[in-house]
Amino acid sequence: MAPSPVEKSCEYKLAELEYLTDDIPSLEEVTNQLSAMRSDLPLMEYVTAVPRPSFAAAKEIINLTRQIIFPGFFEPQQPSSELNVKFSIGQTLTRLFAALTREICAALRHDHVRYDSLCSNCYQQGRQTAMEIVSLLPRLRLIMASDVVATKEGDPAAGNHLDQIILCYPGLFATLVYRLAHELWVRKVPFVPRILTEYAHSRTGIDIHPGATIGKSFFIDHGTGVVIGETTVIGDSVRIYQGVTLGALSLPRDAGESLRGRKRHPTLEDEVIVYSGATILGGETVIGTRSVIGGNVWLTESIPPDTKVFIKKPELVMIHAQVKN
Amino acid sequence: MAPSPVEKSCEYKLAELEYLTDDIPSLEEVTNQLSAMRSDLPLMEYVTAVPRPSFAAAKEIINLTRQIIFPGFFEPQQPSSELNVKFSIGQTLTRLFAALTREICAALRHDHVRYDSLCSNCYQQGRQTAMEIVSLLPRLRLIMASDVVATKEGDPAAGNHLDQIILCYPGLFATLVYRLAHELWVRKVPFVPRILTEYAHSRTGIDIHPGATIGKSFFIDHGTGVVIGETTVIGDSVRIYQGVTLGALSLPRDAGESLRGRKRHPTLEDEVIVYSGATILGGETVIGTRSVIGGNVWLTESIPPDTKVFIKKPELVMIHAQVKN
Amino acid sequence: MAPSPVEKSCEYKLAELEYLTDDIPSLEEVTNQLSAMRSDLPLMEYVTAVPRPSFAAAKEIINLTRQIIFPGFFEPQQPSSELNVKFSIGQTLTRLFAALTREICAALRHDHVRYDSLCSNCYQQGRQTAMEIVSLLPRLRLIMASDVVATKEGDPAAGNHLDQIILCYPGLFATLVYRLAHELWVRKVPFVPRILTEYAHSRTGIDIHPGATIGKSFFIDHGTGVVIGETTVIGDSVRIYQGVTLGALSLPRDAGESLRGRKRHPTLEDEVIVYSGATILGGETVIGTRSVIGGNVWLTESIPPDTKVFIKKPELVMIHAQVKN
Repeated sequence: MAPSPVEKSCEYKLAELEYLTDDIPSLEEVTNQLSAMRSDLPLMEYVTAVPRPSFAAAKEIINLTRQIIFPGFFEPQQPSSELNVKFSIGQTLTRLFAALTREICAALRHDHVRYDSLCSNCYQQGRQTAMEIVSLLPRLRLIMASDVVATKEGDPAAGNHLDQIILCYPGLFATLVYRLAHELWVRKVPFVPRILTEYAHSRTGIDIHPGATIGKSFFIDHGTGVVIGETTVIGDSVRIYQGVTLGALSLPRDAGESLRGRKRHPTLEDEVIVYSGATILGGETVIGTRSVIGGNVWLTESIPPDTKVFIKKPELVMIHAQVKN
Repeated sequence: MAPSPVEKSCEYKLAELEYLTDDIPSLEEVTNQLSAMRSDLPLMEYVTAVPRPSFAAAKEIINLTRQIIFPGFFEPQQPSSELNVKFSIGQTLTRLFAALTREICAALRHDHVRYDSLCSNCYQQGRQTAMEIVSLLPRLRLIMASDVVATKEGDPAAGNHLDQIILCYPGLFATLVYRLAHELWVRKVPFVPRILTEYAHSRTGIDIHPGATIGKSFFIDHGTGVVIGETTVIGDSVRIYQGVTLGALSLPRDAGESLRGRKRHPTLEDEVIVYSGATILGGETVIGTRSVIGGNVWLTESIPPDTKVFIKKPELVMIHAQVKN
Repeated sequence: MAPSPVEKSCEYKLAELEYLTDDIPSLEEVTNQLSAMRSDLPLMEYVTAVPRPSFAAAKEIINLTRQIIFPGFFEPQQPSSELNVKFSIGQTLTRLFAALTREICAALRHDHVRYDSLCSNCYQQGRQTAMEIVSLLPRLRLIMASDVVATKEGDPAAGNHLDQIILCYPGLFATLVYRLAHELWVRKVPFVPRILTEYAHSRTGIDIHPGATIGKSFFIDHGTGVVIGETTVIGDSVRIYQGVTLGALSLPRDAGESLRGRKRHPTLEDEVIVYSGATILGGETVIGTRSVIGGNVWLTESIPPDTKVFIKKPELVMIHAQVKN
């Protein structure tokens, strides 16, 4: 496309935009307004020398964990042989421990600075919790191995290649992040668990609350739109497809206050399969062992073991259209 | 895993790939083909010295806005005390003003260069619009405060911690981006509003068209799959769950031409709640004040105020499976 | 917010965290445990000097392809005039060829090292396949032009601006990535096709398997939650909305083994439209030319040409609530 009249006719002054001198007064005015209103909204800011938890740190923690769980698959410089793989794991582990300590400590401090102002000895506590998490990694590795195998068994498109599952299946990524976040959650670390799972949610469209309990050999296929609520309990060898909601029954307007802490989300026993778009709601709803919930099923009641539940074949309206000529 | 025969037996020539001399002839041929076909597809390219709007700039604008609206939560270097918070806001505001000016100006130029070639005095116009947007930030801050509080009131999992909502709730992020984009939209800035909301869509799975109108105290929970169309009107204190579509009725094949500019999407009055997976369609569909639309409901007609609408308990087919032995 | 008692009363030792000397013994212990268990999980690691395929490389390949297909829209430094656009395309093409060769070669080596240890002459094969892909770009450009036009025709919100579609429509992005990945898929390149489409899935919520076959003039609107399975066949001028699943019928527990390689997903003939949330399942399900599948329809059987299929207007339960006083 040839340069148009506009390009030729008028000077292009973008470069000058760096020098904004004549607008500075009104920018100052807006700054003053924003500063003046700060005292009305103290809880919407966090002005302190104490660092706060962040997505950047969460992302680093997830990446380092993934490198340790699956050696050779995700390091910027992958270990090249038996000779250096242990050093690679050890070094990554050290960095993970430092990042976890910093982040847990920041979260504890953030919490205490804002809510009670009592010294919680957060430095010792952060260090302690980070060490606990790090020492769980061998177990996390085993349980992730069960998830990888469950994925291979459940997905005809996976082929025989565990590597493809490890490299790029979003369900496996979301499950790894959930399992890590859950360990922080049960240790009552504030903020960090949710930041971790929201990072995975952003990348995968899979929203697993860190408070949920999920057994081994878990497989989520496709995954976009999956929601697994805070008090959900899921057994071993469960398989879930895209768009499945494991949620709460309809909530009163003040739900935030009145239902906090109650079991609001369902229980899925071992070997349950839930197909795409199904919705299972309520804290007392239990899906029995080996039951299969069909696509788009809407359930608010318990289902006994070994039961297949499908929607009744829906009545459809079909209109044969005029042939266009 | 020990080095395999392959690793040992064949030379690994990846390093040589930098020197591609013998393929360059055919690369040149492909380049020539691509260049030759350019005249057939002029609208699929934008070859000009005038910069175009970009996702990178949109991301910067969103990040800077977020830093100003929630001081201390998102800056790379958070303000450490009362002494420097105002400087931090002022400096971020200056950068935001510069980025907005550059981007609005680029969008106006892009538009004019391609479509009418009339000089629109884009530099002055960009500067002016950027200043208007910047001076709206105090108001944006107040309305975002209403969204934060609405989130806390609506979500039992939020706890009492507004910080967690601010730090990591995707619905709040998408709402902030929408509110900023909408101000650019009503000022008829091309491209930028949609680039902003598509960035948020990519991060959250929540697709809010910048043309929609949304009142204060808005809360989207989970959010993946939410679609809010261009001409949707939403009142105050509305709550929406994952997978909700506020969309258009089925469109003719030439919808792009015939329906442009018409109100095609529904209206939700104050205090409406729409549960997950519900679909509400049509420009004349109005959901009355305080009405509640249950999960998976499919609506193409108006609902009076104070009405709860649920799907009829669906008939399910249950088969008790043979016990495996 | 003034510095709180906590900030004043206790030393903040985060800086010390860099020196972790006293924890190093137990980090070493965990490292030893992780190393010891490696022999039990050999398939969960990839320790070798041979590079493996990666998301970072996939992202680069996608970005470079996009820059070539739509000149001026996505380059970091856009071409400024007719004088340099050809050089810009040529240079980007060279980089794309190098990146593709590296990545295909890495994928072939990865595959051979792990699964058969026979030398596949991967370097020559990678180079050859990369050159084939690169020489398909002019054709890819034409087919993408058909997708851009189909988007404009199908979306009332698109306006007349093809640029906005090119710059920010997620459906177009996912379609481009799918079309590139599919060419690698039919050439039997392992890993890379799926890594490419999973990158797009992560950014857009649209999950198109690289094995699917999709005709020209394809348009996905909104897109979040769309799943298009491995053996799906889609004709020309098809339009699909958010949340549509083109999937397999319910799968036995050992689906991963028993159904591999069979046609498990539906066929959509030319000019079919599928509205949001519809689910079409099964390898023998064929939707005839020009048929329209309404929102939320659940289909496991074929539909003749020129047919409109809608859900029967669902029975809803409406309760007029007590007026609050």
